[in-house]
Amino acid sequence: MVSPHTVSRRALHPNGPTLSRLVWGAWRARDAAALAEPQGLVRMIETCLEHGITSFDHADIYGQYQVEALFGDALRLDPALKGRMEIVTKCDIALVSSARPGNRVKHYDTSAAHIRASVERSLAALGVERIDVLLLHRPDPLMDADEVARTLEILVAEGKIAHAGVSNHTVEQMRLLASRLPFPLVTNQIELSVLHTEPLESGILDHLQAERIAPMIWSPLGGGRLFASPPEGALGRTMAELCEKYSLAGPGPLAIAWLLRLPVRPVPVLGTTSLSRIGELAAADAVEMERQDWFALLEAARGRAVP
Amino acid sequence: MVSPHTVSRRALHPNGPTLSRLVWGAWRARDAAALAEPQGLVRMIETCLEHGITSFDHADIYGQYQVEALFGDALRLDPALKGRMEIVTKCDIALVSSARPGNRVKHYDTSAAHIRASVERSLAALGVERIDVLLLHRPDPLMDADEVARTLEILVAEGKIAHAGVSNHTVEQMRLLASRLPFPLVTNQIELSVLHTEPLESGILDHLQAERIAPMIWSPLGGGRLFASPPEGALGRTMAELCEKYSLAGPGPLAIAWLLRLPVRPVPVLGTTSLSRIGELAAADAVEMERQDWFALLEAARGRAVP
Amino acid sequence: MVSPHTVSRRALHPNGPTLSRLVWGAWRARDAAALAEPQGLVRMIETCLEHGITSFDHADIYGQYQVEALFGDALRLDPALKGRMEIVTKCDIALVSSARPGNRVKHYDTSAAHIRASVERSLAALGVERIDVLLLHRPDPLMDADEVARTLEILVAEGKIAHAGVSNHTVEQMRLLASRLPFPLVTNQIELSVLHTEPLESGILDHLQAERIAPMIWSPLGGGRLFASPPEGALGRTMAELCEKYSLAGPGPLAIAWLLRLPVRPVPVLGTTSLSRIGELAAADAVEMERQDWFALLEAARGRAVP
Repeated sequence: MVSPHTVSRRALHPNGPTLSRLVWGAWRARDAAALAEPQGLVRMIETCLEHGITSFDHADIYGQYQVEALFGDALRLDPALKGRMEIVTKCDIALVSSARPGNRVKHYDTSAAHIRASVERSLAALGVERIDVLLLHRPDPLMDADEVARTLEILVAEGKIAHAGVSNHTVEQMRLLASRLPFPLVTNQIELSVLHTEPLESGILDHLQAERIAPMIWSPLGGGRLFASPPEGALGRTMAELCEKYSLAGPGPLAIAWLLRLPVRPVPVLGTTSLSRIGELAAADAVEMERQDWFALLEAARGRAVP
Repeated sequence: MVSPHTVSRRALHPNGPTLSRLVWGAWRARDAAALAEPQGLVRMIETCLEHGITSFDHADIYGQYQVEALFGDALRLDPALKGRMEIVTKCDIALVSSARPGNRVKHYDTSAAHIRASVERSLAALGVERIDVLLLHRPDPLMDADEVARTLEILVAEGKIAHAGVSNHTVEQMRLLASRLPFPLVTNQIELSVLHTEPLESGILDHLQAERIAPMIWSPLGGGRLFASPPEGALGRTMAELCEKYSLAGPGPLAIAWLLRLPVRPVPVLGTTSLSRIGELAAADAVEMERQDWFALLEAARGRAVP
Repeated sequence: MVSPHTVSRRALHPNGPTLSRLVWGAWRARDAAALAEPQGLVRMIETCLEHGITSFDHADIYGQYQVEALFGDALRLDPALKGRMEIVTKCDIALVSSARPGNRVKHYDTSAAHIRASVERSLAALGVERIDVLLLHRPDPLMDADEVARTLEILVAEGKIAHAGVSNHTVEQMRLLASRLPFPLVTNQIELSVLHTEPLESGILDHLQAERIAPMIWSPLGGGRLFASPPEGALGRTMAELCEKYSLAGPGPLAIAWLLRLPVRPVPVLGTTSLSRIGELAAADAVEMERQDWFALLEAARGRAVP
């Protein structure tokens, strides 16, 4: 048996942190019986590390505010794991949840008090000293950019976070926050996949490349649709041909290889809860997809050629 | 009886003029019998001033080009009023109107000759020495930014206008004009309300906050719809609850309090022609709306939670 | 008989090349029997030059990759023509075509190798020493801006192209490429006409004016629709009135005069293959359309007044 592919690494920004080229996302960890126990999660973490996937994506709200603590429990079972990984987490969404009885309506909160409290809770739940990258999860229409920038600066100075970024932000939202910060935003975690190509036209990828910021990508497999029901018709045929050409296990790894071809050098977040999928997906990092294959997949997914 | 709330004041820009936090808009002055006579208008102005509303919003075209002169007649009845107020007016829309027999089609005109002539006419009609803020009313596709910038510079140098701004302009339209001006645009008067939330996503509020420019807001009550027919259903219920919580007289003041919560510090223009509404609306300035209430109102108005 | 109108000239950018105010586009040259032979094309070129139209627009792909060579054959019949003209051409679209058997899917290619090869082929086909302006034909989602900028720089240093520009690019796409280049992009060739007015609102014209870049315009006559079937209704009536007022031969020249009125000083590309149309269209350059007429035509074309 061949040794598993070890994914490469890359800096999110010239002055930013280096992550593994693929990131494991803990979003649905509690939804999978195998991962809902710390020992099961340790196995997932070890499987990721074996493939060079050393970066883990969280948010305070995942699993109704419970996933970070579950992940922390896994790290407490094997404390050596902590030194071998980078942690990304997020704040600012406030859910209506039994875990937050004060929340009457889903909202966003970028107040200094909320960001600070959220970071403190994430550090405690995860059991780590520092978050490698803290993201604002959603653009908050009530964001006071001066207040947020000051808060992020203090958290960096205190060593509680190493870097700051955003998620789901537009170009002008990034420009606003960047205008107040003494350091760069190191990423913008956005939705992008062969099934969701709107960011190719919205300007955000152009802006990120201009600023030399690598995006993290959520739902890189179209929310799992590419696994749940393999595409039919032209898309299915094109995917089957390309999987064979590139020796990939299926539409999932192919969709990842498609993303990795983008010059903005995206970092996809893998939401799979299956140990066996990790190796299949990691293999995508070894593929250098040919330009025409990239466009063939785009054309098949959209149902029309480029103009 | 308690003394009326006096609204606060704010600078539109660090280098801009200070206006009252709420502005009275003269748009519909001639439509109301009580205001169509100078003496009635004096009473409205005095009522505003009693509540600290010292800033008045005009445009050359309001009331088929007649409102500025009506307002000027009011000031001529009581010349002391002039020293207690700030005047905003606008130019560049050209209406098909018996007052402008040369106009064959509705159009915009940002030529030097038109801007200058419009300012001269506004000064004469209002009977003031200087306009505090002159706005370009609509983005003109034929705008030559060099010509406009030069014209605004000269008008400032001559003391005919103190500051310049725009209305209904996009981010790139603001960037274009700003690229030619030696001083900042001090505001962009845009439509925004709990019934018209598109600017929360268009990028304009992000740009304004980035540039530390406060927008003025037209139709802050959704074109009066919030007065004409109080909302029903979820929006009606949420508004009723929040009016009670914040001791506000109805949906109108609540909609103003909602706007005032935005970090870009908007300055709503009140179009009411009713003396008694002024106090009710001024009360909104005393409210510090809780974050969750702001989002509850947004959710009720849109009929969906934030993503 | 009066001598034909000679069109004026203009710089695309303060540091850019000077073109004739109208450009002849070779797009459909091979579709017209009269032009499909070099001698016929020489007559078209001479007709253009007689009217001061000295700039010629190409792309590698026009006429299934054959038009540049046809144009080159015309120049070889009369080599003196070369010294009297400016050549614009484009690269980066890859068609499925018998002339490019390696192309399996329509795609874009901004790799250094493709741009260089395309330029070399264009120079050979046209039989010229240098391309005056090379455009990226379509925004390539796989564009590595560093690679493209380096390639354009080298081509300029080698004297193979004099200037670089883009076509069909958005504001953020222009900002990205400009951020890497040591010289300005001198144009963006976009679609714009009285029948396609979306760029008036998209921000691109604002950005171009801000950067003092003149756009070239493709389909300035709505893809020829204004010739094929003269508009009826309000648009037809307005056009008829204005043609008479400005002594223009029909909707085509009027649509050109409408474009030339824009302050961004666009350079329309004429796709006509009819010798007799050239003079009619050139006459548009002599028209200074009145502001109200410009808006009347916009209103008639859109079926609504400006807001």
